[in-house]
Parts: sequence; C-alpha cells; structure tokens
Amino acid sequence: MTLRIEKLKELSTDKSVDVFLFTSASTIKCFSGYFYNFEIGASPFHLLPAALLVIPSGKMNLILADNESLSTPVSGSDIAIMPYLSYTFEKPLDFTNQFLIQLHEAFQNNGVTKARIGIETNTLPYVVAKSLTSAYPNIEFVDITDEIKLLKAVKDADEIENIRASLHLCDVGQAAVLKYAKPGMTEIELFTKLRGEMDAVVGKRIPMMADLVSGQRTFYDGGNPTDKVLNDGDLIISDLTPCLNGYWGDTCNTMTVGKPTAQQIEYFKLIEETLQIGIMAVKPGISANSIDQLLRNNVARAGSYGHHSGHGIGTNFHEEPRIVPYNNMVLVPNMVFAMEPALYINNYGIRLEHVVLVTNTGCEVLTKFQHCFQQT
Amino acid sequence: MTLRIEKLKELSTDKSVDVFLFTSASTIKCFSGYFYNFEIGASPFHLLPAALLVIPSGKMNLILADNESLSTPVSGSDIAIMPYLSYTFEKPLDFTNQFLIQLHEAFQNNGVTKARIGIETNTLPYVVAKSLTSAYPNIEFVDITDEIKLLKAVKDADEIENIRASLHLCDVGQAAVLKYAKPGMTEIELFTKLRGEMDAVVGKRIPMMADLVSGQRTFYDGGNPTDKVLNDGDLIISDLTPCLNGYWGDTCNTMTVGKPTAQQIEYFKLIEETLQIGIMAVKPGISANSIDQLLRNNVARAGSYGHHSGHGIGTNFHEEPRIVPYNNMVLVPNMVFAMEPALYINNYGIRLEHVVLVTNTGCEVLTKFQHCFQQT
Repeated sequence: MTLRIEKLKELSTDKSVDVFLFTSASTIKCFSGYFYNFEIGASPFHLLPAALLVIPSGKMNLILADNESLSTPVSGSDIAIMPYLSYTFEKPLDFTNQFLIQLHEAFQNNGVTKARIGIETNTLPYVVAKSLTSAYPNIEFVDITDEIKLLKAVKDADEIENIRASLHLCDVGQAAVLKYAKPGMTEIELFTKLRGEMDAVVGKRIPMMADLVSGQRTFYDGGNPTDKVLNDGDLIISDLTPCLNGYWGDTCNTMTVGKPTAQQIEYFKLIEETLQIGIMAVKPGISANSIDQLLRNNVARAGSYGHHSGHGIGTNFHEEPRIVPYNNMVLVPNMVFAMEPALYINNYGIRLEHVVLVTNTGCEVLTKFQHCFQQT
Repeated sequence: MTLRIEKLKELSTDKSVDVFLFTSASTIKCFSGYFYNFEIGASPFHLLPAALLVIPSGKMNLILADNESLSTPVSGSDIAIMPYLSYTFEKPLDFTNQFLIQLHEAFQNNGVTKARIGIETNTLPYVVAKSLTSAYPNIEFVDITDEIKLLKAVKDADEIENIRASLHLCDVGQAAVLKYAKPGMTEIELFTKLRGEMDAVVGKRIPMMADLVSGQRTFYDGGNPTDKVLNDGDLIISDLTPCLNGYWGDTCNTMTVGKPTAQQIEYFKLIEETLQIGIMAVKPGISANSIDQLLRNNVARAGSYGHHSGHGIGTNFHEEPRIVPYNNMVLVPNMVFAMEPALYINNYGIRLEHVVLVTNTGCEVLTKFQHCFQQT
C-alpha cells in the first residue's frame, strides 16, 4: 500500500471519519489512478467524471461512466470499478440516476448507512448530497479539504516518477521554443511547434497550460499565445505546464529573438542567480515563506514580481507547498514544487522556473532544461 | 433582448420561478456570453468558473473570479459582473468564501430571500446549496434542467453566427487533413498539422475534441490520435469538434491514404448518399427519430452503425435535438444539428458528417467542406 493511502487511514482516525467520498478529479487521480481528460470540458454524458468511495482499510469503489476506464491503479489499493450507463443512443439518457444507483450500491455494499463521511466540500454536487442524506439520515459529512491538501503536498515514489515524466516533456517543449523561435513567426505558430514536439514524444495529446508571450506582453507576466508576431529584439516568456497521465509538470524560460540589451542580459543573470539561491536553500526544516523571502530579496535590488515565488505540483498544477510570503509550512522530504522568480521592468519581463524535489539533505532539481537566453 | 432571454421569462412564468441560478459553464455561456476555457481543467483557484443569477426581466448578476472577464455580453441583457477574490500571493486563499459573499450580495440586492429558484440540479455544488438554504430558509430549488435543454435546442441569430464561425474552423481542419495525410506519418503528427492550421486561422488556442483514427482503428468508430503510423491503404476518420468562443463545431470526413478498394469506394458513396438523403429530408415538422430512421435504413443494405445518427450542437457538443431512434422531438426552424451516418464493416469504418440549420422550408448545410475520399 502506498504511503498516501496509509496517511488516509491515519486521517480517518484523526477526524473520526468512517469513509471518504471523493468527487474532485485531482484527488480521485491521486488515490485511484483514474485520470479524466478534461480538455473537452464537462461531459454532456456525466454527472461527474467519477466518484471514489474509500474505506480506510484501502478498499475503494470507483463509480465510473461505462465509456471510461482506469489506466494504472495505485499500487496496493483494492479498487472495484462500478460502471454506470452514461449514454446510449437506444434509450433516453438518465446518467444522474444511473450514477446514483451505483453510488448507493457502493454505500450499501460497504455498510455506509450510518457514518461520518469525509468529503471535499467544494466538489460534492448538491444532487449527490441530497440523494445520500435522504436515503441515510444518519450520515454526516465532514469537510477534510485542508487535510487532503496537506496530505498531497508530500509525494510517493510513483508520483515522483510521474512528475519526472511530465517534467521531461517540459524539457522537450523548452528545447523546441529555443530551436524554432524566430522573428516573423507568430506566438501561436511557435506554440504549435512546441506542442507538436511534446505530443510526438508521448504519442498522444497532452493537456497543457502555457504562458507564451513575447515583446511587451512579457511585462504582464503571462497569457495564452496569440497571433502577435515575434519581432527582432523581443523577449519570449515560455511557461509550459503539461499534464501527463494526470500529473502536471511546470517550467519557465525567457529568451530573446535577436540581440538582447546589456541590461536584459544582466537581469537574466540576476534571475538565474536568484533561482540558484533558492535551489541551494531548499532543505527539510526550512519554511516555504523563508524561501519566498530569499528569492524576493535577491530580486529587490533591481525590481520585483507581483506573484508567488513558487507552488507545489502534482495532480493539481498549483498546490501546497505554496512559496508565498504568508506560508510558514515547513518543507519535508518528497515535497515537489516549482520556484519561479521574475522581474518585470522597462516594458519587458524575465521569469525562470525550476521544479525541485526536497531530499533528506537538500533538493534535487527535476527539470533538466538549462535556462538559455539566446539561440546559439 | 434575445429570444432565449425572452424564453427564460416565459419559463419563469410556466414554472412559477422567481429567479434562475445557473452554475453550468454551457448555460452561463448561453445566457451571459461568459466563456470559461476548460482546457486546463478545474481551476485550483475557483469554486466554479462562474455563477449566473438571472432575474426574469433580463437583469443578470455574474459572480466571476477577479482574474476572469466577460468577452461579448449577450445582446440586450443587463449584466452586472460581481468579481470575487480568487487568488493572491499576499494572503491565504479563501475563494469559496469570497464567492459566497458575492453570491449572497447578489441575492440580497435582488431581494431573493424568499423565492423559487430555478436551477440545473446536476451542477449546483452542495456547498452553495447549503449556504443559501441556511441563510434563506424560505427559498426553494426547482430543477429546470429539462426545460433549459429544450430552450437551448433552438438557436438565436447570434448563436448561429458563432456556430458558423466554429464550423468554418472545422472546414479548415478537414482541408488540412486532406492536404497533409500521407503514409509514414503518425496520427498525432497529422493532428498537430490540422490543429496548427485551425489555431493559426483564429490566432489563438482552440479547445478541440477530435476522433483521429486510421486503419483498423476506424472500425471502432473513434478515439484520440496516437503514435500509430498511417500505412498505405489505411482509411482515416477525422471527426473534428472545436469550441470557438464557447460554441462548438463538428464535422467528420473519411479518406484514404493510398488507393481504396472498389468496395470502400462503393461504401463511401453509400454514406455520402445517406447523408444527402438526411439533408433533403430535414424540414420543420419532421421528427428527429424519423431522420434517424431514414439514415439507418439507407445504410442497412450494407451494414449498420452502433451510435446516434446525429445531435444538436451549441454551447454543448452534444445536445438536443438528438437524432436517435427514441426521440420524437419535432424539428423547428433555427435548430442546428449534426448528422453522421456511418458504416463499420470488414475491419474499417466510414463516417461522414454535416451540420445543418433548420430553415422555414428545409435546411441549410452549414459545413462547407466537401467530403472527399482521396487526395487528388
């Protein structure tokens, strides 16, 4: 059994919770391995991508649309898939009812008729809550959103492998930006090139968030690629955040097309240095906000950035540990997070990002792409 | 005021509903114009992309994260945007609470403290329902999911223009498939080409669902592109479903790379003919299932297809009118739907799809790409 399922067991004791009912895609991925590809939005054939009922012993029931399937189950868990009829052309749709039938079946099979049920309250649909409380007046919902956030911040070995794979894709993408960017092409054309290389490496479509901005757009820190043409002398910020098999990667480089100014080179080196200071400082026992402070302070002699200094990644693209001024969370081994110091000044922006894994003595940089300001 | 807002007004009378609270992205798009780009999944900074409180007079309150903005409001509606603090690096997140504060503000501003509230029950979060019923014990939720589905099936002029634009993108994509497909490339490489051309035309990223399958994969009707290599003699099914500014398009072509067999040519012509029979039959007063029957019957001399014959498109990629055996809904002007007869036989599949707009006397084919089986 993985550590995270062990920790769920402990959580059930701490919160006197009998079972967990998860309805958020990221938490379901984390505990079961089931990944819903969200790229096409909410399905018109689903109430939810899935629901996961976890008995603290490790037994799970995954209520899943019949046209979906589990890819790689989480090691050591005992998952029963309970498919429901989500759509057929042969008779009218009733997927909500079908979903609820299976959920009730799971509740009854596991004797969950009088229980304290741990939920993430934001993602539980009203129709599910109503159906459950009507059928079982003695159940009680316990919001465990904050506890799950903390639990997820520390990664298991299989999760770290998944993140490494996603970060490798980021490296491929950054190399493509460096290779293909040239004056006269548009941001969206460059994006097609880099996404094409990333997709080709894994042989499938990868959901991806990406800031890809050039010229003055870099001053405003991010945004989707547009038909803006790359001009000679433009900076490009490429912040690539793909989701491979449910785990996110994240990296950012800043480069020039054409010749940078001496000041731009100086500032690029400052941000490179700042990131390096962060990497050297990360170790168990240090707090997230002290890392934030180190990064901000080092940029302060030139300017500032009006965003976080970093954030955890996993089944969410932004999670704990958040590297922000208010977060005194103490770093522990197997946390994985991005650091992304930046400088926005004189109508341009420079941001560089690496993802690190906290080890027993310091950290390992998981992103292998070397930040590079100019094409050679 | 648009017809669909007029129809909401009528619905409020019919169902004795005082206000509507919409929480599904597609319905919010339909009535307000706000489109949430779902390509990166659920935001870690939102409870919901948005919530829309509609007073039947046409006045609306859109509760929206502060980093989101309304693009083109629906003509004639009076929309007040109520932004909530969704994320800041300067203090801890509390976006659920921030969202609820604005929602309660909207309720109080509009005197909705004792009211029948029309909702789409599937998409209302438990946390929202609980907060509202605790604060206002005299409110009552009325599920109007089915009525909204019917209302959406008939399009306003601005919606038809949006769908035309989305279908033009489909045409661009199909032309790219025909242009670029060649033996030796992979499905995912072909996908990069066609998506790149589509994105370039609009100068931005477009969410897109796509079946792009080749060879034996065409027998199983669909699926995402993979690293399967296109072999000489393979058929390719390209079913492209982009979402441009919140409105979906949908087209399907089948082509060969290399020389088709005489039987394949015969079957392609059969499906072309079948689609044409459907197009000739569509007019106000005919039922959806009679169209389904016509298409199925014409394919029956060669084989069959185990899916719907078509479906409406709009702010969902699949909505009413569903062209299926059980649906006796009568077609009326300004319905927009896809027809996609197919044949899966002898280890390959052929599917062709057009989208039509029901007119006063028949229909207009909105997809302009001419289905084409072979490169010239």
